[in-house]
Amino acid sequence: MSETELPEARADAEVETESQLDRDDRLRPEFVQAVLDAVEAGDTETARALVEPLHPADVADLFELTPHEERAALAHAVADLLDADVFAEMNDYVREDLLDALEPHEVADIASELDTDDAVAIIEDLDAAEQREVLRALDPDDRAAIEEALSYPEESAGRLMQRELIAVPEHWTVGDAIDYLRGHEELTTDFWEIFVVDRRHHPVGTCALSWILRTPREIAMADVMKREQTLIPVDMDQEEVALRFQKYALISAAVVDDSGRLVGMITVDDIVHIIQQEAGEDVLRLSGAGEGDINEPIRFTVRTRLTWLLINLPTAMLAAFVISFFDGEIAAFALLASLMGVVSGMGGNAGTQTLAVVVRAIATNQLTSSNTSRMIVREFRIAATNGVTLGLLIGIGSLIIWHRADLAVVFGLAILFNNLVAGLAGVLVPVTLDRFDIDPAVSSSVFVTMFTDSMGFLSFLGLAALFGVHGTG
Amino acid sequence: MSETELPEARADAEVETESQLDRDDRLRPEFVQAVLDAVEAGDTETARALVEPLHPADVADLFELTPHEERAALAHAVADLLDADVFAEMNDYVREDLLDALEPHEVADIASELDTDDAVAIIEDLDAAEQREVLRALDPDDRAAIEEALSYPEESAGRLMQRELIAVPEHWTVGDAIDYLRGHEELTTDFWEIFVVDRRHHPVGTCALSWILRTPREIAMADVMKREQTLIPVDMDQEEVALRFQKYALISAAVVDDSGRLVGMITVDDIVHIIQQEAGEDVLRLSGAGEGDINEPIRFTVRTRLTWLLINLPTAMLAAFVISFFDGEIAAFALLASLMGVVSGMGGNAGTQTLAVVVRAIATNQLTSSNTSRMIVREFRIAATNGVTLGLLIGIGSLIIWHRADLAVVFGLAILFNNLVAGLAGVLVPVTLDRFDIDPAVSSSVFVTMFTDSMGFLSFLGLAALFGVHGTG
Repeated sequence: MSETELPEARADAEVETESQLDRDDRLRPEFVQAVLDAVEAGDTETARALVEPLHPADVADLFELTPHEERAALAHAVADLLDADVFAEMNDYVREDLLDALEPHEVADIASELDTDDAVAIIEDLDAAEQREVLRALDPDDRAAIEEALSYPEESAGRLMQRELIAVPEHWTVGDAIDYLRGHEELTTDFWEIFVVDRRHHPVGTCALSWILRTPREIAMADVMKREQTLIPVDMDQEEVALRFQKYALISAAVVDDSGRLVGMITVDDIVHIIQQEAGEDVLRLSGAGEGDINEPIRFTVRTRLTWLLINLPTAMLAAFVISFFDGEIAAFALLASLMGVVSGMGGNAGTQTLAVVVRAIATNQLTSSNTSRMIVREFRIAATNGVTLGLLIGIGSLIIWHRADLAVVFGLAILFNNLVAGLAGVLVPVTLDRFDIDPAVSSSVFVTMFTDSMGFLSFLGLAALFGVHGTG
Repeated sequence: MSETELPEARADAEVETESQLDRDDRLRPEFVQAVLDAVEAGDTETARALVEPLHPADVADLFELTPHEERAALAHAVADLLDADVFAEMNDYVREDLLDALEPHEVADIASELDTDDAVAIIEDLDAAEQREVLRALDPDDRAAIEEALSYPEESAGRLMQRELIAVPEHWTVGDAIDYLRGHEELTTDFWEIFVVDRRHHPVGTCALSWILRTPREIAMADVMKREQTLIPVDMDQEEVALRFQKYALISAAVVDDSGRLVGMITVDDIVHIIQQEAGEDVLRLSGAGEGDINEPIRFTVRTRLTWLLINLPTAMLAAFVISFFDGEIAAFALLASLMGVVSGMGGNAGTQTLAVVVRAIATNQLTSSNTSRMIVREFRIAATNGVTLGLLIGIGSLIIWHRADLAVVFGLAILFNNLVAGLAGVLVPVTLDRFDIDPAVSSSVFVTMFTDSMGFLSFLGLAALFGVHGTG
């Protein structure tokens, strides 16, 4: 009876879910509003009924879409639906917001339901006093696992890994492994590969579950497993881990300590967030927007962005200083002041193009010292082609508008020259920073803009002075 | 005997591999050079010995790092090491380069070794005539599968999916499923979950292999499987597919056609490339660098970038036009021409910060109509705080330098005003474009720059004219 009823109930839930999400799989604004209205009206019943059918990832989204000041009330209304999975899916800042409202033992309850990696993600953001209290409320095994994870650097493999994994000795057969899995209730169910270890607990091979299912019971694990493995050192940076997963198309990977012992496992579902985050970070860093997290408290955002604007101020002043050398020319022929911005602006655009390409190529390991010189030549050729085309176009255009051959030549040449500056600076700045182990995404654009602005004004106004371009010409 | 020898041979190979890769897992330039030197010297033996221990992903990298004109010779030297996996890992343009040098039946041989998704990736880039020839050389089953995949739009789930998957009827037990897997040699080994289907071949549930291994043989699949599934429509865009995988932490997902029939499977290892690519695309699109692929033929790159620069030219000219209204003021007081660029430049930087954050938030489904108004208020507050701070700082600074209260007030106010313009344009432009289903990453920055440039010059020069700031003041 319950067998036949279950699918129908599910089908209903699915239809409901459909109406909560738009075609891009985002919560509909009307749905969010309905939940918040119910919460505000004190109608907990309705709020719970609306939220219950949601996937944990959507419940997490709901909290992110709820204004800061209404989150506590929402959390109170749907408290029993706030399980560990919801917290694992939630934005760091929003989670912190909610965790602040909970008692340490409640946080400990949530953490103990999670795999180590997710528990660590929740606990690492708490302040030191709260962390101690939560850890004290955990049972000793969980506590030891989480404390060990917290001992590794932030954003390292040690923080990402879960300690729940399946490792079997090399002399076992496939049948032994299956019996072990069937016979031990307490083992994790969240694994895609089994690690084969030697007597010192060093991984010697990896075995996908599909191979185990396709192989007769009597075959030795050592004959089924793949011996070429990608082992992740426990202190490896998460960005590097993400690149390995991507390059070698991994589903999971063994994490080893300094002595080569298997200490944990990282699975690809924890990596996709990082891949997305690290790849998307470049645009935020290049523009000086820091983390760019829209849930970050406003004072942090202001601090990050203001710092960046202040760093850029000297660059802008340098350009102004360059212009001030040509006061006389500008006073005599104010049109120069109108047009000089076109030269610096077009150079800035071209520099940004090259910079974006080079920064991405460095981040994805496509640009290495093997092909740097080829890249420089390539960008120079592109800059020369674009510079000549734009220079001719702008020169001819200005000849038509102002009937001034001297102005046209100066304008066109300055555009060409600044395109070359932009192309070279766009490659050389990030490549040089990378050589000195400075993240090129963070600091390149200040320097590139400095070059394109200053050289743009200098070339245009300098050539105008040289050719004696002035109002009475 | 061979049992004991194998691990040692492997160990040697691993040591060698270590010396070929640097600590960031990139091929060392000396190694690349050694291979190319051997190829040039006609020493095929050495070249093969060097390349043989490499992982297919590293062989693919080697070709990417090799200059265009030396790739054919390298391919010739290591021809037997160029298997299907290497091609699957290779950059599109580099692969096209190599495939052009191969006969259609050789391409067909490679394609037939691959899962549908990888075979499609190779064949979709060939021109129509070559495609026909390769398809003709394939065996009928492979050919039908690939032709069907090619019938789906580019970058859709239909192109990404593989047709090799495991689907079992709902009335089977776990034991039935295991026997089926053991008994059928021809089934794929590349799967992580089993799909359970009803009589019409519609997916009704998904079952992770770990659950099957943990469950007694006599239990029904219907009782082990998870009924809540994320089904991917065959025509869904790959970016959307990637977001689903990420949101719901999927390892694999069933692809269904219009009638709901199971037609294929997408696995997460094919998705990580897309997640990385889509997330990294924003910086390239915002800067008008197109795909930003460093292996793209230079003429395509020039076309993309030049188009973008030409689109930006009217913006630059508009700003010049705004300045030209103030010819008189500038001629009378050339310092204005030096300083006006600081106002537009600082506004441009602030606008880019906001734009980067908003574009990422839209791309990751974090900014929806539920929280747009909150985002606008947030960005306005940030812009106001930064604008007041910078305006005061710059006003006081210029008072100290030029001892001119009127100039200081005008400069500071213009900075404040342009920061507000930047903050508002940085949100409103991308949000509006997104409403009209235009990719905000592609076109936002032209408009934002237009606002910050024009309004920057207008506010500074306009205020200067209004306050009568001139050289003799």
